[in-house]
Formats: sequence, C-alpha cells, structure tokens
Amino acid sequence: MKLSNKVESMQFSPIRKFNPIAQKAKDAGKKVYHLNIGQPDVETPQCFMDAIKNYDSKVIAYAESGGLTVLQDAVTEYFKNYNMDIERKDMIVTTGGSEALNMTFLSILNEGDEVLIAEPFYTNYHTFATAAGGKVVPSTTKAVEGYHYSKREQIEPLITEKTKAICCINPGNPTGTVLTRDEMKLIGEIAKEHDLWIIADEVYREFAYDGREATSFGQLDEFKDRVIIVDSVSKRHSACGARIGLLISKNEEFMKNVMKIAQGRLCVSTVDQIGAAALFRLPLSYYDEVKAEYCGRRDVVYEELMKIPGVVCQKPGGAFYMTAKLPVDNIEDFLMFLLTEFEDNGETVMFAPAEGFYATPGLGKDEMRIAYVLNQADMRRGVELIRLGIEAYNAKKAK
Amino acid sequence: MKLSNKVESMQFSPIRKFNPIAQKAKDAGKKVYHLNIGQPDVETPQCFMDAIKNYDSKVIAYAESGGLTVLQDAVTEYFKNYNMDIERKDMIVTTGGSEALNMTFLSILNEGDEVLIAEPFYTNYHTFATAAGGKVVPSTTKAVEGYHYSKREQIEPLITEKTKAICCINPGNPTGTVLTRDEMKLIGEIAKEHDLWIIADEVYREFAYDGREATSFGQLDEFKDRVIIVDSVSKRHSACGARIGLLISKNEEFMKNVMKIAQGRLCVSTVDQIGAAALFRLPLSYYDEVKAEYCGRRDVVYEELMKIPGVVCQKPGGAFYMTAKLPVDNIEDFLMFLLTEFEDNGETVMFAPAEGFYATPGLGKDEMRIAYVLNQADMRRGVELIRLGIEAYNAKKAK
Repeated sequence: MKLSNKVESMQFSPIRKFNPIAQKAKDAGKKVYHLNIGQPDVETPQCFMDAIKNYDSKVIAYAESGGLTVLQDAVTEYFKNYNMDIERKDMIVTTGGSEALNMTFLSILNEGDEVLIAEPFYTNYHTFATAAGGKVVPSTTKAVEGYHYSKREQIEPLITEKTKAICCINPGNPTGTVLTRDEMKLIGEIAKEHDLWIIADEVYREFAYDGREATSFGQLDEFKDRVIIVDSVSKRHSACGARIGLLISKNEEFMKNVMKIAQGRLCVSTVDQIGAAALFRLPLSYYDEVKAEYCGRRDVVYEELMKIPGVVCQKPGGAFYMTAKLPVDNIEDFLMFLLTEFEDNGETVMFAPAEGFYATPGLGKDEMRIAYVLNQADMRRGVELIRLGIEAYNAKKAK
Repeated sequence: MKLSNKVESMQFSPIRKFNPIAQKAKDAGKKVYHLNIGQPDVETPQCFMDAIKNYDSKVIAYAESGGLTVLQDAVTEYFKNYNMDIERKDMIVTTGGSEALNMTFLSILNEGDEVLIAEPFYTNYHTFATAAGGKVVPSTTKAVEGYHYSKREQIEPLITEKTKAICCINPGNPTGTVLTRDEMKLIGEIAKEHDLWIIADEVYREFAYDGREATSFGQLDEFKDRVIIVDSVSKRHSACGARIGLLISKNEEFMKNVMKIAQGRLCVSTVDQIGAAALFRLPLSYYDEVKAEYCGRRDVVYEELMKIPGVVCQKPGGAFYMTAKLPVDNIEDFLMFLLTEFEDNGETVMFAPAEGFYATPGLGKDEMRIAYVLNQADMRRGVELIRLGIEAYNAKKAK
C-alpha cells in the first residue's frame, strides 16, 4: 500500500504550516497579528447571505455542471463593465479559483509538461501542476525590481518543447505587481509565437491602485482563442468561504473538454451560487470603496516597512499583498523567534515566509509576504512588531 | 495549443448526455418522467437551511482545510451510531463525495496504476481514475445474478502488480446491490493478501432494505489501516446541491499526505458545512423514515418492471437504483425513440443507458439504470411508460 509519487512530491502549505505554533502562542496568552493569510476582515456584502436566506427551495438539488444560470447571467453582466462579452457557453462555475486552476492544468498538461510562471508565485500552483502530472518552470524576479516579469529576454529562454502555457497572476500574489497593458500584450505575443496557452489568474482584478486600470487578458481580442481566465469571488467580494470561482475561455475545444471534468464532479454548491449571483450584481461603486480601503492599508504598510533599516521593497500596484526582503538571514527562523520568544506588550506578529513561493531552491530565504487584510491600525501595529522583532532577533544573533 | 491526453480520453456523462434531447421533448409539450438521474424529490431536512439562516458572521471566511470543527464533531457523533470512532484527525471534509474520490485516486495512483471495481459502476470513477493517471479494471457482473461481485475466483485473477485498490460502492450505484458482512470480509481478506487499499464508497449506507443492516468497511477492525471511506450528504440527507462529502481513513500516512491536496484547494464551502453539521445531528428516526420511503418506491418499480415480458432483474437490496436488462437490442436507440417518437397521453420517460456504466466495451447495450427518486405514483407511471415504449418500439422494429 504505497502512496503516489505525485502526492509525496507535493508540499504542505507554507502559509498554513506555522499555524500550530501560532496557536501555542495564543494559548499562552499572546496576541498574534495575522498578516500571513489572505483572509480579509472586510465584511462580505450583505446581499450574499440575503440571497441565500431568500432562497426558497424544498430540495437543495444538483446544479447544472456548468453553473446555475442565475449566476452565469450575473457574471455576463459583470464582464460588460470590462467590455467583455462572456456568454454562458464561455464559462464554467467552479469551486473557487482553485478548482478552475485544477481543471485547467488537467486539461492542458501531459506527464512532464511545463507551465511558465514568474516566481515568487502563489504556492498552490505547485499542487495543481503536480496533480496534473506537470511542473512549474519559474522565471525568477527580484524585490529590487518590484518583481516585474514581463521581459522577452527573461521569458523566452525558458520555453521548451514541453512548455504548454504562461501563467500570469495579475495583479500578483504574493508580490502585488500589476501588469501594464503593454506588458500583457508582450506576453500575449510570446504565447502566440510559441503556440502557448495564457492562463490569466485575475482574482484581484479590481485591486489596482494609483490610477492603474482594472484589466483582463480577455480584453485582448487578438489572443482570445488562447486565453483561459481564472476568477473568483473570494477576494473581490471578500467571500473566501463561498468557494465560487470561474473558468472562462473563448476556446470552444477547451471548454468542451473541460466540461467532461465538470460533469465528473457533478456541480458546485447551490447555495453559494445563489449568493454569488447577488455579488456579481453589485454596483461598480462597491469595488471603488473596497479598492480605496485596501489602497489605504497598502500605504500604511509601506510607510511602516520603510522604517525598517535594510528592508528591500517597491511599493506594489495591486492585490493586497506585499513581498519584501528583510535584514535577517533566515526568515523561517525569524518567524519562529517571533512566535516563540518575542513579544511586545504581550503581542507578536505572523507573516508568510516567502521561500515557499519560490520554485527555485534556496531563493526567498530572507523574504516575507504580508497580506494587508486587517484594518489600518492593526496593519501599522503588525509591521511595527516586525520592526521591533528584527531588532530583538538581530541583537540576539549578535550575542 | 493541444489538450491533454487525459482530458481527451475522458467521457461525457452518459447520465447527462441525453438531457438536450429530453429538453426538446419538453419544449414540444411532452411531460418527461426523469428516472435517469439520482436527484431525489425527497425534501432536504429543514435544519440544513435553518442552520445557514442562523449563521451570523460578517465575513464568510475560509474554513480550515480539513473542515469546520462544528461539522467534524457532528460527523464523529454520527459514526458512533455504527460503533465507529472517527476523530477529527481521521477525516477531511470534501466538496461532495466526488472530491473525496478525486483526492483518493490522486494520492494512491501512479501513471498506469489500476483500481479494481465491479462493473457496472458509477461512471465518474472513470473520470477520477483518468485524472490521476490511472485506470479502472472492471470485474464484470450480471443482471441474472443480481450483480453480485464478492467472489474470490472473479476478483483475484484481475489483480496485477499495477493494482492499487479494490473499490466497493456499497450499497451499489447503479445496481443497488448490497454486500453482506461476509462478502465485505472476503474483499478485506483479498485486499490484505495482495496489499491493496479498500476504497469504500458508502454514500448510500442507510438505504439497505429487507432487514439488511447499514454497515461500513470501517467496522472491520482487522482492515482499518487500508480502508478509505468516501461519504456524502447528497443522497443520505437529500442534499445533492450542498456539495459536502467526507474522506475518512485511520491510515495516518494517507491522511497526512492527502492533507497537502486539501490545503492546495484551501477549503470547502463554509455555509454548506454549517448546514451539513445540522444534517449529521439528525436523529436516527430520520434515516428510518427515508429508508421506508425508498423501499416503498423500490417495491413499486420492481412490481412494474416484472410486468414487462423479457426483463431481467433481481430485486436490489439497497441504494435507490435498479439496473435491468430490457428486451431491446440497443438501449440508446430505444431511449432516443422514447424521447423523440413515443408518447402516451403526452407523456414519456427517461432512464440512464447502462452502457456508460461498463468499462468493458460492448457490455450494457441492453441494460438501463433507473433511479427511484420520484414518488410512488410517478415511479409507477414511469415504468409503465417504459413498458408501453418497449411494445411500441419492438412493434416498429418488427415492421
């Protein structure tokens, strides 16, 4: 009774693995500021639960495998804001963006096939690529360059006969980096020249700051046959537990085949779909409000980070993450110190070590990811605790 | 831009593929009795929606990857009814039984590995095995023998070096066949001798009739290290759209590794878990009532089927399916006839052709699966329409 090579080569979530240690700190009476996980404190719009409470059905029945039409039609309306014509046939409702990624990799990767992605990247891409028998080939980016990755000379040498897709998380997790339209076009051109799919993970679409516009690869008509969009209500609508995602493509052959997988797993939660339909009908003003809230938090985090001598970080343009290089030699050791030894007035802080976001061994050992998902006062205090922690940690190391 | 071999070798749902043709019949004004899909008309217990309506949280947040403790603890209580000690560490809450199967195959199958299963079997096993790079090896059973499959001389010759598991859907879908405890023990012995996993798909556990007891492979202590139980609220609690399943095992190494996949997809719907926790707290009398309802329907279906000259079917002992051999040469052609040509007082009927439930090409061409998910009057009329349809079909063919 052996386990599969696939599951054995998968990694535990680097975001969640310090949770038991944080729990011990909390059990011991410490307050822990959780900057480690992308779980916002922003309230889920009331319309989500209202729609569910008003759902009047005696039988909670299977939905269609592609999704409930009430949700699909709301999604169609939502995309009109981006001048995109997304019809029912172009979308499959999925259990979170996670399932959309899972289905995508399963549909395009054979054993040993590769997908290109800029590192650091959202760590679960590993899991989904491995599950499909493929692997992630990273294009390394740097803190000092703001983790920008749309460079032909950096992407093209990585393309092999095994390469099937370029993945763009835009705006980026964990970096917060936002592609310009020209950068998107360049990636589109490269994909076209090498006959690759473009997997556009756009779950943070609206969270683009400082005048940057919310965009989609789906707006670039010249690449529409090769674009696969992954979407979700988790972040956009602060409904992480709703598990409603979308897989969107204008490629009919892809959608036809991926429907086999969708049928295999039957359907997505009926009540979550009812609630999500209301979310996609929210007015545009909702996104403006949420964006302003996150932008304010980003400014606070950046301001506090800049008070730490030796930190390397460019102000990111989107999402609600920031990755930064800290003046410590081993970020996991530092995090362990924060959770087990350090405290300031009975408080400490937790972030995600960035090593798990890199595919290249050895990288990210002095980098952390912060999710600015708490209110401004808590974020300010959280980063202050990181600063105080670094002072204490390096003082201890110097002894 | 090619698609993967895996997705191309998957099949469309044989249960759902006639839906568009049925829709045309309905659009033309015909009433169609749907005996084709396992969507019961039994009301979902009110406690499901009540629990959700009482869920008072401003943020619909991620749940833990293994499941909400409120649900896990309810599941622990439920299994005490079966003298089983299922702790939080022994279970992962999944998005339906489908995800539990998906995770299981991904965790135990390498490229080319095999899982044994009696055919006809629940068709989506194909999809999940293929997704994991493995394949289903069928052990053929027969209508005339009531589709019984627990025979050493039938199972053992199929075991190769590639075999990783024996799958038992018990009670069976699509056959309704229920294993006796001795049959379960025999399968356990074979698995032990050949060092195989036992995948016990027990989503119909309570639906065992005529004095048969509801059982679980988890009750057989001598095999507990190799048993993986797949469970779900879909059928048991008539909550197909709730998408709450369970993956249960006492094998710690398996559970530890499968948690990597669970973390990769983050978590299961929070509101569905809140509702499902209430379902697992239902009193045992609930299951008695539902069982009596389905047993009554089974009796009606069997009685009506026996009026069809030439039908081959043994009265099944569980679940809510019946597979039968009909006196027609091509079941899909007959179904097409029912949906496009036949009617009786403006009514017709739909079942699932059994061919898709067989892995061996050519089998099942004269068999159908009926799901007795409608009330007795509708079931009686549905089977009557099959009888009248056969008369009309064979009369037409004889011309």
